[in-house]
Amino acid sequence: MTARDKLSIMQIRIATRADVPAVLHLLADDDISRTRGFGIVAEEVDAAVWAAFEAIDADDRNELIVALDGDEVIGTCQLTFIPGLSRGGAERMLIEAVRIHTARRGQGLGGDLIRWTLDRARERGCAIAQLTTDKRRTDAHRFYAALGFEASHEGMKILL
Amino acid sequence: MTARDKLSIMQIRIATRADVPAVLHLLADDDISRTRGFGIVAEEVDAAVWAAFEAIDADDRNELIVALDGDEVIGTCQLTFIPGLSRGGAERMLIEAVRIHTARRGQGLGGDLIRWTLDRARERGCAIAQLTTDKRRTDAHRFYAALGFEASHEGMKILL
Repeated sequence: MTARDKLSIMQIRIATRADVPAVLHLLADDDISRTRGFGIVAEEVDAAVWAAFEAIDADDRNELIVALDGDEVIGTCQLTFIPGLSRGGAERMLIEAVRIHTARRGQGLGGDLIRWTLDRARERGCAIAQLTTDKRRTDAHRFYAALGFEASHEGMKILL
Repeated sequence: MTARDKLSIMQIRIATRADVPAVLHLLADDDISRTRGFGIVAEEVDAAVWAAFEAIDADDRNELIVALDGDEVIGTCQLTFIPGLSRGGAERMLIEAVRIHTARRGQGLGGDLIRWTLDRARERGCAIAQLTTDKRRTDAHRFYAALGFEASHEGMKILL
């Protein structure tokens, strides 16, 4: 596949309600996420998940993003733009829940998706973008390092 | 100092405009932050920083927190509550910009501040809390581990 072919199939935009089931399938289709209760995606999406989508959709500082090939959702991520007093008052972009369809990996689509989010952050005037990635996802660490991210921090989490 | 004495001096609440200069001093009083252009805190706070405070203050999903001893701000952090489709649609709490006044460290105040934020997250129904801490801050890693955080992720950042 040439770069030109790749560009022609990839559309990246903010998700709509109609994209939510496909996004949930992408979030579920992941070995590590399966251990978080994502093993089965119910056909009927839970009311709390719809409420979360509505909350994201209504919030100028949260964006659910989808990458498409035609009508098919082949990638997703969520962006959160965080105001703060550091770095001269510039926003910080947090990237969460990055997924590329298993059948579409290794084609550079993930890199295109992340570069698109970084361009979006620059347009907003963000000073920094950040994400955390499970220490077991060594392929992901190389992927983000190649895009210019530095593994400068420990990512610490606590379940509540 | 007994636990009772400590409790009696520590008040934790959402910051007001009047707290902002003290918070900026705490953010600046840090070896690593000095490398981020925080070496000198101007008496006159930049308009962009005030705008960032107003943005936080107006946003239900962002909270600038201060810990006080009487009228003195001795600690701070920022909380962001992030809606998401994972974990049954529960919110995620991100903790950023945690600082305790250098003269007040080692008294357990930081632990009290973080436990307060975790209680706040539980009250909102958050499923997880997370933060990143510079790999050079080894004391901080032990501090957060003692509070129940797990260093399960790489924290990756890119300046824009």
